[in-house]
Amino acid sequence: MSKPKGFEKPVGVRDYLPHAVSRLRWIEHKVLDCMQRWGYEQIITPTMEFYDTVGVASATSDQRLFKLLNQRGTTIVLRSDMTAPIARVVGSLLKDQPFPIRLSYHGNVFRAFEEEAGRDAEFFQTGVELIGDPSPEADAEVIALAIASLKAAGVHSFKVAVGHVGFLNALFEESLPGQSHVQQELKDCLLQRDHVGYRHILRSLPLDEGLRDELEDILRLRGGQEVCEQALAMSRSQRARAALQHLCEIWDVLSAYGVQDHVLIDLTMIGDFSYYTGMTFEGYAANLGFPLASGGRYDNLLAQFGRPAPATGFAIKTTRVLEVMEEEPPEREKTLILYTPDRRVEALAEAEKLREAGKIAVTESVPDPAALDAWLGEWERQGRQVFTHRGVRYHERIVFGSRKGGAAR
Amino acid sequence: MSKPKGFEKPVGVRDYLPHAVSRLRWIEHKVLDCMQRWGYEQIITPTMEFYDTVGVASATSDQRLFKLLNQRGTTIVLRSDMTAPIARVVGSLLKDQPFPIRLSYHGNVFRAFEEEAGRDAEFFQTGVELIGDPSPEADAEVIALAIASLKAAGVHSFKVAVGHVGFLNALFEESLPGQSHVQQELKDCLLQRDHVGYRHILRSLPLDEGLRDELEDILRLRGGQEVCEQALAMSRSQRARAALQHLCEIWDVLSAYGVQDHVLIDLTMIGDFSYYTGMTFEGYAANLGFPLASGGRYDNLLAQFGRPAPATGFAIKTTRVLEVMEEEPPEREKTLILYTPDRRVEALAEAEKLREAGKIAVTESVPDPAALDAWLGEWERQGRQVFTHRGVRYHERIVFGSRKGGAAR
Repeated sequence: MSKPKGFEKPVGVRDYLPHAVSRLRWIEHKVLDCMQRWGYEQIITPTMEFYDTVGVASATSDQRLFKLLNQRGTTIVLRSDMTAPIARVVGSLLKDQPFPIRLSYHGNVFRAFEEEAGRDAEFFQTGVELIGDPSPEADAEVIALAIASLKAAGVHSFKVAVGHVGFLNALFEESLPGQSHVQQELKDCLLQRDHVGYRHILRSLPLDEGLRDELEDILRLRGGQEVCEQALAMSRSQRARAALQHLCEIWDVLSAYGVQDHVLIDLTMIGDFSYYTGMTFEGYAANLGFPLASGGRYDNLLAQFGRPAPATGFAIKTTRVLEVMEEEPPEREKTLILYTPDRRVEALAEAEKLREAGKIAVTESVPDPAALDAWLGEWERQGRQVFTHRGVRYHERIVFGSRKGGAAR
Repeated sequence: MSKPKGFEKPVGVRDYLPHAVSRLRWIEHKVLDCMQRWGYEQIITPTMEFYDTVGVASATSDQRLFKLLNQRGTTIVLRSDMTAPIARVVGSLLKDQPFPIRLSYHGNVFRAFEEEAGRDAEFFQTGVELIGDPSPEADAEVIALAIASLKAAGVHSFKVAVGHVGFLNALFEESLPGQSHVQQELKDCLLQRDHVGYRHILRSLPLDEGLRDELEDILRLRGGQEVCEQALAMSRSQRARAALQHLCEIWDVLSAYGVQDHVLIDLTMIGDFSYYTGMTFEGYAANLGFPLASGGRYDNLLAQFGRPAPATGFAIKTTRVLEVMEEEPPEREKTLILYTPDRRVEALAEAEKLREAGKIAVTESVPDPAALDAWLGEWERQGRQVFTHRGVRYHERIVFGSRKGGAAR
C-alpha cells in the first residue's frame, strides 16, 4: 500500500470549485427558503452520532456506515441520513414541543460504497420532516413541498412517483404467508426496478392463478387516481385496501394543490429506506436515471428515541440537482480597481463604495505608472468590455494613478 | 462502559435548534456575501481527507485529529481546518489558475479535545485564503476583510490584535541560539497569554541585562503604529527588523482602509497554528475571552501540495459570533390557514399566494365546523394579534370553513 500523494483525496469525495459552489449554494438557498415559506424551521445536527443510537436507527446497512472510535472507546458514526438524528432531537431537546413539528435541514451525509461503484461517499441533502401528523394531508403536504422545492431549485421537467410500502407489505405477507425470504426477494426486485426478475420469481412459486395475476398486475398499475381505484377493486386484503384508501386521499389533496400533473401513482414504489411504513415517493427528472428527491412515511422510528409518533418527510439530493437545473444563479458584476501607492486612499474608498452597493470589487496595487501602462495596454489588446486579469473575468475597471501620459482617471 | 441512550450524542458536538440556526445561517450568509464582494469565490472541500497529506499538513496536533480507516486500510481524518484542504486544491484542481487566488469557504471542522475541557469537537468556520501574494497589501486586505466580515455579521465592538511570528522567531532564535526548548516554552507562554510565566522563564535564564530587557519589553509593546517604530528602534536583529518593517507597512495600508480604530499592534501575538510564518492576528469582541477570528500568513504550506506560494488568510469561528452579535436576523411573518375539507382548494390556493409573496404560511385541516369554533374560541381567549397554535407563534390567521354561526371569512 503506497502513501497517498499530496494532491490526492479519498475515493468517493469531491471538491466543488467556485462555479459549482455558486450553483450549489443557490439551490440550497432557494430550497431552504421554499421550505421556510411552508412553515418548516431549520435545524442543524452534528456530523458524528453514536453508532448504538442513530447509527442503528438509520436505514443504512452496517457495512456502509463510516465508523470511528472516540476517546472513551465508544463507536461513533458519520451520519448517513438526517432523519434519524432529527428523530433523536424530537425525542430529546424538542420533547416538550407539541405536534405537528415541521423541521428542515441542509447537510452532508456519508455512505461508504464499494470503490468500483463510483458513487459519492459524501453528499448534500436538503429536506424536511413533518412529525406528529398521521393524515393523508401531511403526506400530500410533503409531496407538494418536494414539488415546490424542485421548482424553486430551477428544475421544471420532473415526475414524482408515489407508492405505499404498507400496501406492498400487506399484499406480500397475505399472499405468501411465512415466506419472508421470498417476500424480500420480490421487494428487492421492485427496489431495483427489475420487473423481469420479479415475474420470474412469481412464476417459480406454486401460486394459484388469481393470486399470481394480482401480484403481477401491480407492475402495470401506474398512472393517476384510476390506479388506486383499480387496485382497490382488485385487492382482497383488508390492510392493502386501507393503504390504497390512504393513497387515494393523498391524491385528492395533491389535486387540491394543483400538482397532479407532476404526480404518478406507482404501486411498485417501495422506497429504499427500511424505516418506511406507509406512503413512499421518488422524484425523477427527465433524462436522469436516479432520483433527485425521495421520501416517505415512517411511523415507527420516533419510538426508538422515546417519543412514539407518526412522521413523514423527504430529502432532495442537492448535488444531483446541479446536473438538471434549468435556471442559473444571477452573475454579479465584478470591478477591478488598479492603483499606484500614492492613490491608495482613493482606490480603497472607491472599492468600499462599490461593495456597499452590493458589487464585487477587487483592488490591486501596482508599483509605478509604467506598470499601470502595461496593464492598460494589455486590456486594450483584449478589446472587450468584459476582460480577463490574472485569470479572473471582470466587467469593469477603475484606475487610480498617473499614467506616463497623464491621469488615468 | 454502558451503551449510550437513545437521546444521547457524543461529547463535544451540538444540535442547533431553529432560533440558533436562523441566526447562524444569517451570519454565514452575511459573511460569505461580504467576502464575495471583496472578490473571494467560495469553494467546498470534503469532510474526509487523507491523514498522510492534509492531516499531516494541518496545524492540529496528532492526538486531536479524528481518524478512521477506509475500506483499503488507509487512514482518513476529519478535516481540522480548511486551510490545508484549500492548499491541496490550489496545488491540484486549480494548479493552472494564475495568482493571486482569492477563495472563501464555510464549513464544519473537527478537533478532539479532552472531555473535561468542554470545547466543541465540531464547529463552523467561515474564512478566506489569499494565495500567491507576498505583499503587506495582501496581509492588510485579509485583516480589513476580517473587520468588514465581523461588522457584516452584526459585531461592532471588537479589536483585532496584529503581530508577526517571524519577528518573534527571529528575536528568540538570535537571543537564545540553540536553545529551541526554551524558545518553545517562551512561545507557549505567549500563546496562552501567560505573561507571569514568560517573565519567570526569562529571569531564570543567564541573559545579559540588555537582552533580557528587550525580551521583556515586547510584553509592553501594544498600541498603534508607534509600537512598530519603538520595536524597530530597539531591535538589533536584521530578520526581526524586516518583520517589523512589513508590519509597519501593513499598518499603513490598514490606515488607508480607515480601520485603524479596530486594530492594535501586539508583538506578543503568536497565532496558534504552527504553519504561520509572518503576520498573525486575532479578533476579540468586548467581554469575550476567546478570539472570534484568527488568521495569518503561511508562506510554506503550499509547497507541501506541489505549488510553492506565499499565502495569507483568516477564519471566523461562526458559532462564537452567535454569542456576541449585536443585530438579529429579521423575523418573517407567519400565517396560519385553517380549513374544513370542503374548502381545501381555496385554503391551499391562499397559502400558495402568501408563499409566493415571500410570507410563511402553514395550513391545517380541521374535521368540522365545531373544531373550527373551538380553535377560534381559544385564540380569542389569547386575545393578542400574535397568537400561539400548537407551540408555534403566528402573526395572522385565515379561516376557510363554515362556523356553526356562519362563514368565518
